[in-house]
Amino acid sequence: MQQKALVTGGAGFIGSHVVDGLLERGFEVVVLDDLSGGFRENIPEAATFVEGSIVDTELVHALFAEHQFAYVYHLAAYAAEGLSHFIRKFNYQNNLIGSINLINASIIHEVKCFVFTSSIAVYGKNQSPMTEEMVPVPEDPYGIAKLAVEQDLRASHEMFGLNFVVFRPHNVYGERQNIGDRYRNVVGIFMNQLMQDQPMSIFGDGEQSRAFTHIDDVAPLIADSPFNERALNTVFNIGADTPYTVNDLANIVAKAMHKTPNITYLDARNEVVHAFSSHKRLEDVFNFTSQISLQEGVERMAQWAAVVGAKKSHVFENIEVMKNMPNSWRQELLKSDK
Amino acid sequence: MQQKALVTGGAGFIGSHVVDGLLERGFEVVVLDDLSGGFRENIPEAATFVEGSIVDTELVHALFAEHQFAYVYHLAAYAAEGLSHFIRKFNYQNNLIGSINLINASIIHEVKCFVFTSSIAVYGKNQSPMTEEMVPVPEDPYGIAKLAVEQDLRASHEMFGLNFVVFRPHNVYGERQNIGDRYRNVVGIFMNQLMQDQPMSIFGDGEQSRAFTHIDDVAPLIADSPFNERALNTVFNIGADTPYTVNDLANIVAKAMHKTPNITYLDARNEVVHAFSSHKRLEDVFNFTSQISLQEGVERMAQWAAVVGAKKSHVFENIEVMKNMPNSWRQELLKSDK
Repeated sequence: MQQKALVTGGAGFIGSHVVDGLLERGFEVVVLDDLSGGFRENIPEAATFVEGSIVDTELVHALFAEHQFAYVYHLAAYAAEGLSHFIRKFNYQNNLIGSINLINASIIHEVKCFVFTSSIAVYGKNQSPMTEEMVPVPEDPYGIAKLAVEQDLRASHEMFGLNFVVFRPHNVYGERQNIGDRYRNVVGIFMNQLMQDQPMSIFGDGEQSRAFTHIDDVAPLIADSPFNERALNTVFNIGADTPYTVNDLANIVAKAMHKTPNITYLDARNEVVHAFSSHKRLEDVFNFTSQISLQEGVERMAQWAAVVGAKKSHVFENIEVMKNMPNSWRQELLKSDK
Repeated sequence: MQQKALVTGGAGFIGSHVVDGLLERGFEVVVLDDLSGGFRENIPEAATFVEGSIVDTELVHALFAEHQFAYVYHLAAYAAEGLSHFIRKFNYQNNLIGSINLINASIIHEVKCFVFTSSIAVYGKNQSPMTEEMVPVPEDPYGIAKLAVEQDLRASHEMFGLNFVVFRPHNVYGERQNIGDRYRNVVGIFMNQLMQDQPMSIFGDGEQSRAFTHIDDVAPLIADSPFNERALNTVFNIGADTPYTVNDLANIVAKAMHKTPNITYLDARNEVVHAFSSHKRLEDVFNFTSQISLQEGVERMAQWAAVVGAKKSHVFENIEVMKNMPNSWRQELLKSDK
């Protein structure tokens, strides 16, 4: 009998690639996704799709009762870190309470391993290179929620024996990314702007740096992780090793899209300036190093983006706090009221 | 004009004493409490009582719009740490999402200071004496939720300028404690058992130790804290300095109640064995040390308990996970099904 795996957020960017990996490995895969950030066309035919939210406790418990999943890959999240200050409640409801529904069901139904994609947002400021031995000090509601889920998984392991693997990915980009999301994933935002002949927008002077990571350096490892004994009940940074400034990235993306770079600099946001991770633990346990250079990865993604075309960028409607919001976001929100 | 203060959980044990302190200091006080753990008779006549839950977002926002509170004292919580493993979702909904409703409203309505009672549960295992400089590693959902709120308050201060004071109290007991709560506060549980001529129940061998703290060493400081400049945006341990074993406590309580101690030892729970805090920071900033000995405090409480009498102990009905629950709790739950 095939073993069953649940992938939450399986219609989303990283999730859909994890679904691919699991199908290749012979799993029967159920995707749970509310399509708030994902797309139906990202889900392979061979997977069973359930449209719904992890926040829906009854749905989650019914799904676990029906399928008796052996493995849970929890990738559903509302991952707009910068916006999370302004949608605190929505953030915790989706990213923490939704996760707790899945953890409760996994305890009750004795799931073999719960794989969770956390975030480098748990580290907070001034700690590059970030290592898993560091004590996380998250500084925004998104990072706080992700850390709480990590801690809850550890407590669930201690109390109930639920195995877990936690990944903290680093600025992942690539094919199937939601390039219509204006609040996250700078590579996709740049491509979407370039395809509409808009200037690329950068918060601050663009000298903030990140180690952007192509999806193919991430998804296969996530799919394989519960089958590596040494990975169980461990937290891993995952991603590329070389940081680039956002200015450098803009030039690389423009080149891959065959456009002349044109940049609008916006007021700086409250964000970490330099962020890159150590991947020693990942290399040691998985015998893996990141393979795909930024130039190569961006070119792959650019070819895909050229095929799918520009996406309309939606404004997030349910803002809870408008105070101190970046001006560009505020103005878009005010426009959308009309 | 009188300044207005909101006290959530103001019908509860610590909350009602904070209300007393604020009324004495000339504040107009509004109490928000859902009476899930508190009692109407704990609320002084002079305070305005609103029956409702911090989880009710609309109620919270309406209340802030109506009253324009200058200060918020957030003491509402479902504080059963040991039970929190089995009511994960309820725990996060009440202790995190409820707090976030209050933080959002405090940002929007520009509250001067948000005073929050966290818990030593944020520290986790093996770290006594606990100091505020330590990095918290909570090990149960209750402590995880409390830490997330602390972190969210710091993020709110950085992003929006919301001032806060956080207290991490240590096993507080005293008059008006809910001695009918079977899941928390060992002093009250012992008194309730003694008044019903039941044996006192102890998890494990009773050699676990705690520094039990009388309410009068806690509530006045909490009430005063936002008016001490040096206290703003700071976390404080608060409580007594001398740890006692639970066995010692049982003898002290029995003596104060004029009963012969009779103890039932139950299976050990997954809990921290020894816990006590350093209060150097509190002493420094508030020029205060704990005054009330355990013997004196327990006698005061015993006199009060003798007047109010034994309380019926309610079973918590909405358990989410039964697996690995302490046997005594499980049996009570099964009994209550009939």
